[in-house]
Order: sequence, then C-alpha cells, then structure tokens
Amino acid sequence: MKGLFVTFEGGEGAGKSSMLQEIGKDLRQQGYPVLETREPGGIEIAEKIREVILNRSHTAMDGRTEALLYAAARRQHLVEKVVPALQSGKIVLCDRFIDSSLAYQGYARGLGMDEVYKINDFAIENCMPDLTLLFDIDPEEGLRRITANKGREQNRLDLEKIDFHQKVYEAYHQLAERYQERIKIINAGQSFDKVKEEAEEVLKNYLPSKHE
Amino acid sequence: MKGLFVTFEGGEGAGKSSMLQEIGKDLRQQGYPVLETREPGGIEIAEKIREVILNRSHTAMDGRTEALLYAAARRQHLVEKVVPALQSGKIVLCDRFIDSSLAYQGYARGLGMDEVYKINDFAIENCMPDLTLLFDIDPEEGLRRITANKGREQNRLDLEKIDFHQKVYEAYHQLAERYQERIKIINAGQSFDKVKEEAEEVLKNYLPSKHE
Repeated sequence: MKGLFVTFEGGEGAGKSSMLQEIGKDLRQQGYPVLETREPGGIEIAEKIREVILNRSHTAMDGRTEALLYAAARRQHLVEKVVPALQSGKIVLCDRFIDSSLAYQGYARGLGMDEVYKINDFAIENCMPDLTLLFDIDPEEGLRRITANKGREQNRLDLEKIDFHQKVYEAYHQLAERYQERIKIINAGQSFDKVKEEAEEVLKNYLPSKHE
Repeated sequence: MKGLFVTFEGGEGAGKSSMLQEIGKDLRQQGYPVLETREPGGIEIAEKIREVILNRSHTAMDGRTEALLYAAARRQHLVEKVVPALQSGKIVLCDRFIDSSLAYQGYARGLGMDEVYKINDFAIENCMPDLTLLFDIDPEEGLRRITANKGREQNRLDLEKIDFHQKVYEAYHQLAERYQERIKIINAGQSFDKVKEEAEEVLKNYLPSKHE
C-alpha cells in the first residue's frame, strides 16, 4: 500500500486527540493528503457497535465480550475507511488502534495481551501501523486534565478507578519495549507546543518525499 | 459443572428450533430441570449485538466483523445465562452455538474454520457442549420448508443463495467427522415424530440418572 498508517495511543487525558487534529492540519498545509480518523469513524456498523460498548447501562458486560466488540468495530472501520485511504496514498492518522485493546483489555482487565492479540490479529489481518506515537503521561495527571476539562463528555471508561489507569500506563510501556521499531514514546507532560514539536520530529522521518 | 450442555445445529429449515421446544417439554415432563435458550437469549447486551448483525441495511458488513460479533454475543449469553444454569444442575438446550460460526462464517463465507475457531475459543474458554445434535437435511429441502412456512420471519441469512447453504451443509458434515464424540447426526428429512424419536434416543444416553 502506498500511504502511511500512523496510530495515536496513550492513556486518558494524554491529549492525543487534540494533537492528532493539530498534526493533521500541519500535514495538510505541507501538501500531504491526510485522513484523520478514530474508531468507529462514522462507519455505521462500527458506530452501532460502539453504542453497545459505551452504553452506561451495560454494567454487566464481560471483559471478553468487550474485547471482541472492539475487535469487530476495528475490523469494519479498517476495511471501510483506513485501507481504501492507504490504497489511495493518504497519510492516515488514527486515534487508538490495536495497542489500546492490548493495554486496556489485555493487560488492565487481565485477559492477557497475547490472548487479546489473537482476536485482533483475526480482525486486522497483518495490517499493522507503520508508526505508533505513544503519548506518555502520568495517569493521575491525565485524569486531572480530564476532570478540569468540563466540556469533555465522560464515558464509562473514564469512571474506572485510578489503579486501572495505572495498569494501562504500565501496559503501554511494555508494548513500547516489545515493539520498539513501531512504537515511539512522546513525552506528553510538556506544553502543547513542545509535545507537538516532539511528535512532528518523529513523524518527519516516516513521511514520503513529496517529489517521488 | 453439574448440568448437561446440549446444542442443536443444522442448516435453515432443518426444524431444530421446534424440535428443541418439543424435547425440552418432554424432559420437563420426565422431571428434569431444563433451560431452553438460543443466542442472544434475552441477554440485553447480546440482543443489541444481534440487532447489529441482522439489520438488513448493513449490507456492507465484512465477514470477519460478523464472525467477531457472533463470538461477542455468544460470550455474553454463555456467561450470563448458560454457565449459571449448568452450575445449578440444569439441562441446557441451546439453539445454535460454536458449530454455526464454524460452518457459516468459517466455511461458507470462506474465513477458514481454524481461524474462526480461534476467536470462538477466546469467547467460550473451553466451555464446549457435552452433546451436539446435528439436524441433517438437504439444503434445498430445508429452504423449501422455510418458504412454505409463511409465518416465519425471513432475515438476511435466509436470502443467501442456495450454494451458500450447500456449503453450510458440507461444513456440518466435516465437523461431524472431526468431532465424532460430541456431534451426533439426526436425520431431519423424516416426519416430525420420527426425528424427535431419533434425537431423544441419542440424548437418553447423556442424561444424568434422576436417582443420583
């Protein structure tokens, strides 16, 4: 495939979603064709699946059910939106992907990262990101940012206890160790401009030449 | 677990759903505690997932997305309804289970039975049926029965072409060969009473003694 597949990962409040928009804007200004997306990304089937996952009344949802639903939404978003964009040569910036499932369901919920990898491997069929930017922030600081930002809608996951977020943090660091070639850690505890500068410095090395 | 887990499998129009109700009634009359169920079985989360799967407007649903959704609904139904019933010593009669996914998604849709087994293995965690009754009918005859029965609601799967149903038929026979200990073939081309007699004759050998 001709495009570049970049995923944005990190715990709650790491600022990855705002950063994704900002980096997308910069890339466009530089003349690159860009697709900013996140699961379920406006894909009808995946939106319906997300409604099931995030519905606050579903307190009895089993961890394995949740992991299978995330994998299903991921599959549909990937085949309907990401792959066509990559095939047309776009830079795809995706807010969360397989590493979120490995960290949240695999490690923090205790299903096992290898187990959760299996069902995601079924879902993505080797379509792994070319680059993953891991926005790294202390989980307590991340949750403080979310609480301060009153405009942001809270969902079921935000309400989890702090030790859950601590586990997510540990998991991301294990993944960064395991996939050193793909995952690059960005210090998200800095000012917005500094974080952006660090992320764009990493991304620069992966961008195709515009003269090709 | 103390109970007995029996699944009912077969192509469209094999009559397995009516047979399940009939056999359940007979077992109750004999004094056994019985749970008749089918996925999603009134489990709210699983019902919501089923709505996504069967919605006729979702024509663009990818085969792997569908397989993951079936596995998710299966998981939730299993942990919320089947396992508690087995733990309380009930005979659970379940209309379709893992073999349906292996036959429909794995074989007929071409995803591969081993691939689909992987995600279902994640979903059920070794909680396989003690006995599977395979209601065996020629696929064309099965579809004729469905068409004749105008009271039955048609869904997206009924509208698939005949060669799809032919593949489902082949897949079930491969599974019966592979899992000879668990899957028993019942000739569903006979009269209702004959089919019932044959199924109950097989089931008899698995029933716990009421005097234990």
